[in-house]
Amino acid sequence: MSSDYQAFYHRRCVMITGGLGFIGSNLARALVELGADVLIVDSLIPDSGANFFNIDGIADRVRVNISDIRLQTTLNHLVRRCEVIFNLAGQISHIDSMRDPYADLDINCRSQLCLLEACRLSNPRAKVVYAGTRQVYGRPDSLPVTEDHLVRPTDVNGINKAAGENYHLLYNNVFGIRACSLRLTNVYGPRQLIRHNRQGFIGWFVRLALEDREVQVYGDGSQIRDFVYVEDAADAFLRAGASEVCNGGIFNVGGAQPTSHRDLVSLLIDVAGTGTVRYVPWPPEKKAIDIGSFYADSSRFRAAVGWNPQVGLREGLTRTIAYYRQHLSHYLESPAGTTLEPA
Amino acid sequence: MSSDYQAFYHRRCVMITGGLGFIGSNLARALVELGADVLIVDSLIPDSGANFFNIDGIADRVRVNISDIRLQTTLNHLVRRCEVIFNLAGQISHIDSMRDPYADLDINCRSQLCLLEACRLSNPRAKVVYAGTRQVYGRPDSLPVTEDHLVRPTDVNGINKAAGENYHLLYNNVFGIRACSLRLTNVYGPRQLIRHNRQGFIGWFVRLALEDREVQVYGDGSQIRDFVYVEDAADAFLRAGASEVCNGGIFNVGGAQPTSHRDLVSLLIDVAGTGTVRYVPWPPEKKAIDIGSFYADSSRFRAAVGWNPQVGLREGLTRTIAYYRQHLSHYLESPAGTTLEPA
Repeated sequence: MSSDYQAFYHRRCVMITGGLGFIGSNLARALVELGADVLIVDSLIPDSGANFFNIDGIADRVRVNISDIRLQTTLNHLVRRCEVIFNLAGQISHIDSMRDPYADLDINCRSQLCLLEACRLSNPRAKVVYAGTRQVYGRPDSLPVTEDHLVRPTDVNGINKAAGENYHLLYNNVFGIRACSLRLTNVYGPRQLIRHNRQGFIGWFVRLALEDREVQVYGDGSQIRDFVYVEDAADAFLRAGASEVCNGGIFNVGGAQPTSHRDLVSLLIDVAGTGTVRYVPWPPEKKAIDIGSFYADSSRFRAAVGWNPQVGLREGLTRTIAYYRQHLSHYLESPAGTTLEPA
Repeated sequence: MSSDYQAFYHRRCVMITGGLGFIGSNLARALVELGADVLIVDSLIPDSGANFFNIDGIADRVRVNISDIRLQTTLNHLVRRCEVIFNLAGQISHIDSMRDPYADLDINCRSQLCLLEACRLSNPRAKVVYAGTRQVYGRPDSLPVTEDHLVRPTDVNGINKAAGENYHLLYNNVFGIRACSLRLTNVYGPRQLIRHNRQGFIGWFVRLALEDREVQVYGDGSQIRDFVYVEDAADAFLRAGASEVCNGGIFNVGGAQPTSHRDLVSLLIDVAGTGTVRYVPWPPEKKAIDIGSFYADSSRFRAAVGWNPQVGLREGLTRTIAYYRQHLSHYLESPAGTTLEPA
């Protein structure tokens, strides 16, 4: 039996930007199960996480519209019937944002304005849930990090994601477009991009482990992170989208078990039964934008909507490894014909 | 006799973006007096504060390059010889930013990346002083506001100015481009745009008073602001540009006398000897992005570089009124041929 927030989506028209990507596609699968009318909008930007295989098995139960969300007229049309918009389209590579800050600006700022303007112009009753990121906090002053921590991003991506988030709150407060932001920490699980290593380390570590390669951990591996299994992240979006108490709010969505890189990798290798670990010095370009240890306090979100992550790290890694063991080839080819291997 | 930070500029090559504007031109005048080699870069965007009359009397002692700072190749060339860059180019109208968020994004985000990329590519030894704004704080939790207050902007302009500021700190921290940000509160004085009322209220109030018109104050006028006379603001830039202790820092630059709108207007009318006041209800579009009372704690900047505002509010308003009485016609025409009167 589904609970209230799940029943909310039955026959409801929802849109997912970035819906062919990692979290977006997992969310789409959950929504299809709940009987929602799902519109996926994705730009298929090369080297993003977009992958048609991510909707394998549900492709005939969703509508897919390939489009760049920087196009105002396109978006004006697409948002028209949607009651809830899960806004997950974004450039998420910290490293790429430092190499090409303009591309990051276009995707993480201009596109977000475009979506919100489309709502204002064509569908002001839509509700928008934005995929924010812990990256906006930068290096934490203290742990765990609450939403009252200063926003002090250490890379272009974090700066632009902070702006994108603020646009959502602004349109909520000024134009009455109901919106909130979920600041996700490290999300992992099936359907994550593992073709290259520029979208966070965990997907890359998973790939190395299951190919029985060496996982390189920077420094002594004592850095702490918290990890959210993707189904728990999707559940967070579902709860936020069905709730009115979230409007205008910012919420940390983090994992229950803060874990060091060292412990993560040893658990991963244990679960996979393959892979080795080696500790290496920090590469300067990564050290320059690193933030030290981080884990979030998610109690505000828990109190607001009752969210609680259900999948522990061992279980989540086990499912992740099993998924990629079965479907690895679909995650090594680039769907847009770009390079197979990281630069 | 000039003090050390003033002597620093003798024969030094400096660039001022937005140098035909209000603060930029006052800064240019101060720099010319100190013997600096001044390059003004301005895009002459219609309805901005750019005005050739602002450099009347120093036009033969500065170089002026009209250019859009969104052009990377242009900027790469222009920054090449500059030792200090005062980066004041910006869209500053909160109201305009809500009407055209894309223009604000281009000017306050893309242009800032352009300038910083130009430094990284062509002149990494330049030092950049960015004109930030108190607008990034949004509605304050408590007064006076320190730099540790959360950044929670209430309009598109504040969001984009926060991103622009963060780029500067990022390029300081990651790429070694020495940069800092001065978060200015309400700056006023000669050479401010008074053609329309979309760039802050104080210039507009000055114009109404000296034309013996009615000054409309929203609500009961109890809202508090702090005001910085433009020569004191220029002095803040000079001190920051000559100092190494500011690198990577954010500093409030606010006035010494927090003053209500009510008291400001009555002082203004008293000083001008003309004008009347009327209290009117808040227009909804302004109320929606209003932040209540605000005044800044500038002690961090004072401690860093010894800055102290020298010109009190009565004296500053007296000089301002005298300036516009003498030169009013130059501030009613649009230098770019746009409308004379506010929309």
